[in-house]
Amino acid sequence: MAATASEVKLLGAWPSPFVLRPRIALNIKSVEYEFLEEKFGSKSDVLLKSNPVYKKIPVLLHRDRPVCESLIIVQYIDETWTSGPSILPWDPYDRAIARFWGAYIDDKFFPSLVGIAKAEGPEAKAEALEKAKAGLELIEKAFKECSKGGEFFNGDQIGYLDIAFGCYVGWIRVTESMHGFKLFDEEKTPGLVAWSERFCTHEAVKDVMPETEKLIELLK
Amino acid sequence: MAATASEVKLLGAWPSPFVLRPRIALNIKSVEYEFLEEKFGSKSDVLLKSNPVYKKIPVLLHRDRPVCESLIIVQYIDETWTSGPSILPWDPYDRAIARFWGAYIDDKFFPSLVGIAKAEGPEAKAEALEKAKAGLELIEKAFKECSKGGEFFNGDQIGYLDIAFGCYVGWIRVTESMHGFKLFDEEKTPGLVAWSERFCTHEAVKDVMPETEKLIELLK
Repeated sequence: MAATASEVKLLGAWPSPFVLRPRIALNIKSVEYEFLEEKFGSKSDVLLKSNPVYKKIPVLLHRDRPVCESLIIVQYIDETWTSGPSILPWDPYDRAIARFWGAYIDDKFFPSLVGIAKAEGPEAKAEALEKAKAGLELIEKAFKECSKGGEFFNGDQIGYLDIAFGCYVGWIRVTESMHGFKLFDEEKTPGLVAWSERFCTHEAVKDVMPETEKLIELLK
Repeated sequence: MAATASEVKLLGAWPSPFVLRPRIALNIKSVEYEFLEEKFGSKSDVLLKSNPVYKKIPVLLHRDRPVCESLIIVQYIDETWTSGPSILPWDPYDRAIARFWGAYIDDKFFPSLVGIAKAEGPEAKAEALEKAKAGLELIEKAFKECSKGGEFFNGDQIGYLDIAFGCYVGWIRVTESMHGFKLFDEEKTPGLVAWSERFCTHEAVKDVMPETEKLIELLK
């Protein structure tokens, strides 16, 4: 793509699921970028200046203009580098459905995943687990609806919802490993089980997806 | 527009700020639609079937296919009836900025407005008020940035952010009236004061914007 490394910069940190989103989107579009790693526990001046409202990563700097909020950045990337593969579906209705589930994943599923880690005592833990599993079953249904028989949420290629949900796969695996149970379930979410394998080995994903072991190490 | 009333239906309720959004968007596009008023305190079968995840209004039914979540519906309307005036800005960067502030308004500003109503005691009330005012000052800055000297967030015509923020104007006025203070402030948010007048009298807005007195009556 025409962009040079200095034209496109991404403020981020490797374990962040939200930072993974623009990284995958830039890979899909074959856009080169400079990855500026924020130090854990501190915020750089460029971050504070670029995202004064939330002071959070990721921030995309395109020709020094900041774009914030991971799914907004993904849409910006899709609308800016239009000659690469489409990230959002082409059809307005399919786009609306993708946006709906993208918001669901952030507003409902992700908090339920965090809820497992935060739950104290076996009863609360079991309840949190059930909530996350119920969310995954809904996302399994969404996968069937959106993929239309294809390998990804976006059909034959990865796209918006693959990115929106896929960024959590590493943390889902960490949760499974640390708590000794399965969230991706061969019986209840067979579509997601197979999809998650395909997603993690995808060309645009494999080099930026953090290893589960490294994430567990970080948590410890 | 080509759509007939039966092709486009909107499940809603007149006092809901979220329902106001697709109503204004449909008016901008001159799309005729059937307004199906949900009864307060109950949920119709068509609502439960159309939005099984949240069971909330608004839901747009376009040729019987449901679209949920107010700002997603607004984008769907913009992308479906493309021959009408554009609701999202044309430029990808301006779109990203509009989406950023749209999300801020729902995630941060609206809860601060609700916080005023919920605050108990004069101290908590004063604190909630300050929080909401700080949010409005940020939105004032966004207005200056986005409007680029025009009359609306979207420049010369109303668009996405006008709709996203404008839907709360009625409830801001109710809050001012019930608590005896000003949120729209001639000194600190002069741009928003003038904008809110223009917005409420706009052709696409005036017939669907609920009267402040009717909203106060409802609250009582």
